[in-house]
Amino acid sequence: MAKGKKLYEGKAKVLYEGPEPDTLIQYFKDDATAFNAEKKDTIDGKGALNNRLSEFFMNGLTQIGVPNHFIKRLNMREQLIRSCEIVPLEVIVRNYAAGSMSKRLGIEEGTQLPRPIVEFSYKDDSLGDPLVPEEYIIAFNWASQQDLDDILALALRVNDYLSGVMYGVGIKLIDFKIEIGRVWEGDFMRLIVADEISPDSCRLWDIETGQKLDKDVFRRDLGNLTDAYTEVARRLGVLPANVAPATKPTIVH
Amino acid sequence: MAKGKKLYEGKAKVLYEGPEPDTLIQYFKDDATAFNAEKKDTIDGKGALNNRLSEFFMNGLTQIGVPNHFIKRLNMREQLIRSCEIVPLEVIVRNYAAGSMSKRLGIEEGTQLPRPIVEFSYKDDSLGDPLVPEEYIIAFNWASQQDLDDILALALRVNDYLSGVMYGVGIKLIDFKIEIGRVWEGDFMRLIVADEISPDSCRLWDIETGQKLDKDVFRRDLGNLTDAYTEVARRLGVLPANVAPATKPTIVH
Repeated sequence: MAKGKKLYEGKAKVLYEGPEPDTLIQYFKDDATAFNAEKKDTIDGKGALNNRLSEFFMNGLTQIGVPNHFIKRLNMREQLIRSCEIVPLEVIVRNYAAGSMSKRLGIEEGTQLPRPIVEFSYKDDSLGDPLVPEEYIIAFNWASQQDLDDILALALRVNDYLSGVMYGVGIKLIDFKIEIGRVWEGDFMRLIVADEISPDSCRLWDIETGQKLDKDVFRRDLGNLTDAYTEVARRLGVLPANVAPATKPTIVH
Repeated sequence: MAKGKKLYEGKAKVLYEGPEPDTLIQYFKDDATAFNAEKKDTIDGKGALNNRLSEFFMNGLTQIGVPNHFIKRLNMREQLIRSCEIVPLEVIVRNYAAGSMSKRLGIEEGTQLPRPIVEFSYKDDSLGDPLVPEEYIIAFNWASQQDLDDILALALRVNDYLSGVMYGVGIKLIDFKIEIGRVWEGDFMRLIVADEISPDSCRLWDIETGQKLDKDVFRRDLGNLTDAYTEVARRLGVLPANVAPATKPTIVH
């Protein structure tokens, strides 16, 4: 499928015009960045793994009726998605304390939270995606109260579902980030899950060993990132053609 | 742990008094019945598999904050559960048409429903657990409107989660049944998931082949029930000590 012109290049993905109206092509790069791009590297195979994993999770969400941007995978690195207007928020769902929450509140990583907590960051790289209270979101009109209520409900459904997907293969879903887009169907505005769902956007710990299987492996220099993502893909039965299956047995717990 | 006196014997399980107040011991039998017990057999190993699988699913629900009766597994066939007052309803969640819905409405089995449908049967073996409209439930005071709203929300969360657990291991959750119990915490009444979650109470189809991995294997004489349940347990990494793991490779899709 011929790509149209490049519309946007982010840290890990590129968006091109799609072949039909209201579609885009999302290209997954091998680039990894952390700490607002202060740390950078190229990780062989990461793009292909995230393309496949995001396809897998978005298809699962479609099956349970959670609307999202995914249309179909085009090849190893590209997928066709619905064009949408991105709500300028990172929607973060946390089941266990980790990362910035642990740092800001002094809660040990891995501590289970009293209930899943949904928080919002304002999407702005130059500001480092700052955490914002809901009041800011409404006051600055990034989203309406009704939108926020709908986003919260969507995010919690994604959390229940993804927690299940991971639990079935011996992985604990510590937290994840999604983005939300608006699409119009006639006069009706609909919120859909956009961006990607992958080990770049989730924290995933092995249930038995606590081993990290997500981007923290890169952020914290804990080993080979491709091996970690491949392990997630292997457990889920999702492997791009160019990645050989690992030989480790399925963990029995 | 010493069992107290037998309180109830059902088709697939026995309940005994537990060692502490407000606890029961739930014993999983190898008996299988179908069509309101018109068809009966003993299936070697079924009880142990369901005991382990129900433990696995209930523990998962606990982790995402869905309250349920499970306390701990005691041995191969028994688990300690919270005593509760069972709401006399079978709560059935359907994602795809199958079984009685397909028969009653003439919808082909496996047809995806427009959205998950929650339906209720009145728990009464002598009546064959008849399907009942919500109006009956309120009018006969089996549950209040508020209870029903809460049960619906619980059932949909369980559905999102279980759909995810199954999707992660290449299984489609066609439908399932849960029961709901009331427990009192001081003056506060709380609804919890009770009974069991196992291939006895779910319809599970392999995503790739459509192979049935649930009690329909018994109902419809489709093969060896223990093999089907073992396959589910094996994929989820849940195997009682007495069941050897199957040697088939994980399905790659």
